[in-house]
Amino acid sequence: MSNAEIRVAVLGAGGRMGGEAVKAVENAPDMELVAAHGRADERSAILSAGATHIVDLTVPESTEANVRFAVEHGIHAVVGTTGWDAERLQRLEQLLAEHPESGVLIAPNFALGSVLATAFAAKAAQYFESAEIIELHHPQKVDAPSGTAVRTAQLMGQAREAADVAASPDATETALDGARGAEVAGIHVHSVRLRGLVAHQEVLLGSPGEQLTIRHDSFDRASFMPGVLLGLRTVGTRPGLTHGLDGYLDLGL
Amino acid sequence: MSNAEIRVAVLGAGGRMGGEAVKAVENAPDMELVAAHGRADERSAILSAGATHIVDLTVPESTEANVRFAVEHGIHAVVGTTGWDAERLQRLEQLLAEHPESGVLIAPNFALGSVLATAFAAKAAQYFESAEIIELHHPQKVDAPSGTAVRTAQLMGQAREAADVAASPDATETALDGARGAEVAGIHVHSVRLRGLVAHQEVLLGSPGEQLTIRHDSFDRASFMPGVLLGLRTVGTRPGLTHGLDGYLDLGL
Amino acid sequence: MSNAEIRVAVLGAGGRMGGEAVKAVENAPDMELVAAHGRADERSAILSAGATHIVDLTVPESTEANVRFAVEHGIHAVVGTTGWDAERLQRLEQLLAEHPESGVLIAPNFALGSVLATAFAAKAAQYFESAEIIELHHPQKVDAPSGTAVRTAQLMGQAREAADVAASPDATETALDGARGAEVAGIHVHSVRLRGLVAHQEVLLGSPGEQLTIRHDSFDRASFMPGVLLGLRTVGTRPGLTHGLDGYLDLGL
Amino acid sequence: MSNAEIRVAVLGAGGRMGGEAVKAVENAPDMELVAAHGRADERSAILSAGATHIVDLTVPESTEANVRFAVEHGIHAVVGTTGWDAERLQRLEQLLAEHPESGVLIAPNFALGSVLATAFAAKAAQYFESAEIIELHHPQKVDAPSGTAVRTAQLMGQAREAADVAASPDATETALDGARGAEVAGIHVHSVRLRGLVAHQEVLLGSPGEQLTIRHDSFDRASFMPGVLLGLRTVGTRPGLTHGLDGYLDLGL
Repeated sequence: MSNAEIRVAVLGAGGRMGGEAVKAVENAPDMELVAAHGRADERSAILSAGATHIVDLTVPESTEANVRFAVEHGIHAVVGTTGWDAERLQRLEQLLAEHPESGVLIAPNFALGSVLATAFAAKAAQYFESAEIIELHHPQKVDAPSGTAVRTAQLMGQAREAADVAASPDATETALDGARGAEVAGIHVHSVRLRGLVAHQEVLLGSPGEQLTIRHDSFDRASFMPGVLLGLRTVGTRPGLTHGLDGYLDLGL
Repeated sequence: MSNAEIRVAVLGAGGRMGGEAVKAVENAPDMELVAAHGRADERSAILSAGATHIVDLTVPESTEANVRFAVEHGIHAVVGTTGWDAERLQRLEQLLAEHPESGVLIAPNFALGSVLATAFAAKAAQYFESAEIIELHHPQKVDAPSGTAVRTAQLMGQAREAADVAASPDATETALDGARGAEVAGIHVHSVRLRGLVAHQEVLLGSPGEQLTIRHDSFDRASFMPGVLLGLRTVGTRPGLTHGLDGYLDLGL
Repeated sequence: MSNAEIRVAVLGAGGRMGGEAVKAVENAPDMELVAAHGRADERSAILSAGATHIVDLTVPESTEANVRFAVEHGIHAVVGTTGWDAERLQRLEQLLAEHPESGVLIAPNFALGSVLATAFAAKAAQYFESAEIIELHHPQKVDAPSGTAVRTAQLMGQAREAADVAASPDATETALDGARGAEVAGIHVHSVRLRGLVAHQEVLLGSPGEQLTIRHDSFDRASFMPGVLLGLRTVGTRPGLTHGLDGYLDLGL
Repeated sequence: MSNAEIRVAVLGAGGRMGGEAVKAVENAPDMELVAAHGRADERSAILSAGATHIVDLTVPESTEANVRFAVEHGIHAVVGTTGWDAERLQRLEQLLAEHPESGVLIAPNFALGSVLATAFAAKAAQYFESAEIIELHHPQKVDAPSGTAVRTAQLMGQAREAADVAASPDATETALDGARGAEVAGIHVHSVRLRGLVAHQEVLLGSPGEQLTIRHDSFDRASFMPGVLLGLRTVGTRPGLTHGLDGYLDLGL
């Protein structure tokens, strides 16, 4: 065994995100990759490899058992798999109460830039008369708006409501169907689908004489890895459950 | 009388566009402002002032009579007033056939940048898989999408059809109402309304691995004046009717 | 006298900013404009008008005396005038210590969007490998980069240094003079001067596979007025000296 | 042999661009890939494969011999390799005069969007008071500004000079070193280097009250392939030498 304090087992290493995580951990000078598991591997191998941390990038069917196994063995977990509903989260909180030394991060989004953009948009929303969102994605995407845009709009809408901000002014009388976008929590959201793009979002905030634009571009799956590494470096110092990478960012928001 | 060859009477000088035109002509070193007419002034005053050109920025009710008066007296006309339907244009063409020395420019848009942006978008549209338009305006605007966006989409759609370009790819299966914008000639058009903005348009073209964006920002009514001056400088050398300022631009498009 | 609790005297009302402030206060439903002073007016008129607050938008030569006069008479002050060096600030702090009920806000920038953009850029700077700034202004501007860009770069550079972030990667070997911009606190800053623009700034942050862009556009002096009003509404509840409008924003930064 | 009329041999297939070209030709329904040559292969294999076209993506040392071989054997050539100086071009023109049925396209840039962006920028440059260029690239790039930016600036500068446009206004009196960028043909050019980016360029044109922005983003080498295919489809109908892909675009510029 090496002296690295962060000894990582990647679960779901056969998937695209998992493959990126394997590379990222291997390249991190303060970490050691001790195991890279596919679907069929036994969980016990995590222990025999001497892992101190797992990265779970598997599937909704196995993520809960993986994380519980880690917590029960004093291993910290960074989780990017979806499927963590309220019931699962509650069960996990109970388990963590019995293992107060273990830390778990469940993050729906590991792109630091995207997490920051959403936090800034939510913070700024109350200071402008108008707010709209444009999200732009590759044309294979099957849903519109994107989940990130919906969540951003909800947070912005809540912030505006809490601060008693009036609805964005809009004198539109005649419009072609769909021209003004979808409305989410009082925020108009526009979804562009364009060949060549990956995942992009622009939050537009306007007041008399000025505009604030917060844009995030995700060009590549590699953009998630700094967030995974930040999670691995932090999770051991934050016992209990943290939901969302913003909990680890020094945002003071 | 001065020696300026372009002696301009501004009609509709009491309006906002007309007031800008008065200032622009006064500041142009190669022109002389010889008359600035409000609504109630007699057309004969154009003659007594020795005008060689008029700029008509009046109202749909009076523009046709103004222009016909100019043509009949050998005065060139630059026209920004709306209301020139097919019938009026045909009558004007007939009159110009009898006065082959007179030039008339009828321009729905005098912003050079906007005219160029539309021309470029139409030209580029056939070379990309995907094409969408975002237009952004002040929140007092009553219609959506803007007339410029609709016209740009129509020209792009025609160019794509002529070149047998397939529809923009779009795998959307589930969408909130309006998320994907309005569809004009096969082009999705999104309308943003934001306090602080004036009139802006962004044409997005995408192919594998690349994007071309053509954006025009109109911050101020002043943006129309270079186009008015270009019209005045050119109309005397282009007998007959020209529709659209692009006819005077060296676009070779 | 009306019942408005915020009774405002605008000092420097003859200047452009002052004129905007007069309009903004007149239109604010919770304020009353009780005096609008030019340069030559007597300060005592502030008292006779029953002002509870002053807005000082005068000149460096008179701002200190104005503010001291206000503090000594229990009047709160919102100050946009430049020229407050360390010595003046120290003298003001001493005076405020003797008048603990008075509040003073000295704000070099009243555009909420600009203040937010700078705060967000400083907060995000440590999370990205690369950081650069592009500022764009009208071509009459005599200095480059803008003061706002320099200050933003300094705050970003400090944040990156505090977090031990390496210098932005840059393999440039051969460059035309000036191509890579000016360097301020390790951040490359590029200054664009373009007819038609007013004051704009774009902070670019990049990491593998992603980019975060924070852009502020100032189209008009009107953009400063929401900040002035926010200052007037808040200064009475914040005794002592506050430097920078961000001190009044709920940023938690 | 199939019935495809465009039977392509890719030379330099072992390189990154060459590998992309192999894939692109394989996927083109109207083409057949008949050979994919590495560096060490014999040119005679082009003939035995029955190629009607070559794509040369090799190195400056071998491109001239490859192209001359093709021309001498009645094979059309699409060339992306650099190193074609005036002397080489002249020798090739002479050879083509003896083989009037052969077509050769030498293209320094195959990204359609980039070629269009440059053409539009050159065309628009004369209609605006101000013009600047921002180019943004990955931080491994060793030169600044990019070759594309320099060429775009030169074309814009020539167009402005030909139209007697005054220099862009600029009142800068005091500037930090480099803040105003590099000057190429009277156009200020700014070079941003940012992790996460690939190759991007923004041409900014400004006049009173308006701005025209022409931006091209190259996210991926795949962006060159539509241009390579367009070249292959067109070169057989354009005997002689064409320099630059814009010669094949229906730009009328």
